[in-house]
Amino acid sequence: MGKFSEIFNELVASFSRFPGVGRRSAERMVFSLLKMKPQEVKDMASKISEIHQDVKSCKLCNNFSTQEVCSICSNLHRNKEMICIVEEPKDIFAIEKTSQYNGLYYVLLGSLSPFDDVGGEDLNIGKLLNRLQEGDIKEVIMATDPDNDGELTAQFLIKKISKYKVKIYRISIGIPLGTQIEYIDSATLGKALMECKPIP
Amino acid sequence: MGKFSEIFNELVASFSRFPGVGRRSAERMVFSLLKMKPQEVKDMASKISEIHQDVKSCKLCNNFSTQEVCSICSNLHRNKEMICIVEEPKDIFAIEKTSQYNGLYYVLLGSLSPFDDVGGEDLNIGKLLNRLQEGDIKEVIMATDPDNDGELTAQFLIKKISKYKVKIYRISIGIPLGTQIEYIDSATLGKALMECKPIP
Repeated sequence: MGKFSEIFNELVASFSRFPGVGRRSAERMVFSLLKMKPQEVKDMASKISEIHQDVKSCKLCNNFSTQEVCSICSNLHRNKEMICIVEEPKDIFAIEKTSQYNGLYYVLLGSLSPFDDVGGEDLNIGKLLNRLQEGDIKEVIMATDPDNDGELTAQFLIKKISKYKVKIYRISIGIPLGTQIEYIDSATLGKALMECKPIP
Repeated sequence: MGKFSEIFNELVASFSRFPGVGRRSAERMVFSLLKMKPQEVKDMASKISEIHQDVKSCKLCNNFSTQEVCSICSNLHRNKEMICIVEEPKDIFAIEKTSQYNGLYYVLLGSLSPFDDVGGEDLNIGKLLNRLQEGDIKEVIMATDPDNDGELTAQFLIKKISKYKVKIYRISIGIPLGTQIEYIDSATLGKALMECKPIP
């Protein structure tokens, strides 16, 4: 049974490489392809093969974009004195959904990762430092992930950036809204206590 | 941001239609396509567009197959006197993985579903009844899902099948292995008590 169709097995292997998709979910996805109308499946395949032509990197911030410069960098209503540094374009998606930020972004396209041999020279920060040098940017928010690699990356960048005339911030780390303190992992809870803010 | 790429949004919508894939997972999958090498993405797209040509329905049992008759129906070592009735080809996959069954299968390609207006005449059972008529099959195992639609389908089929000279079984329903009784939902637990078996 396991080898009833070469393509079935290859597709299961392909889909398993999506983040968060295990072998069973991948199998379920291929079964669902088999139940779809052939035309729907063809449409999906052609969109997949076009996505790389359609979406490129913004030459200013590395965000995904269909244009040379992305819709955020080219938006006249954004605050051009503020830049938020994230690891991946999907972090921009998440932040934009909040509607709480109106500045620019810069995407590192990764983070420092000593275990995977990703060092400072591999981080994509040349364009960022050039822009800081130009002097238009007054504030930088470090929004790398609050995990080991993200914290390391934040520390590394803060060192690099502190020689420019900008104010540097770290996105607030603490207990998430809507949770109960008894269920928060103790690392987060400890951090939230250490970072507690005075009530004005 | 939401409309930065037409194809991005269309793919998120396509992937969201996979079972168990929500909007967020679909977005993550498309982001991961964007991070893959273009050639890998092309390969995946071409496999997806070929899957329907590669995989068809077995003309005997409706299982997915690359041949006219699937590898189970054509396997000389399978017990041809026993047939297991399932709703979907993926159920065959699941049962085959157990290595506990050596008979044949018959796939209904669905179940009765009064709420979705799927009645007995929509079930794909003509070929099954013909085979029972021929008289080679001695035992039938009903392995439809233990949910409302699956139980209804089992009852409906048992009525239809009982006029042939075969012994009919229902796959055992009860508490799963490796669980703790206090955590089993009470419908399952009640069923498991009602179906308790004498110790020989």
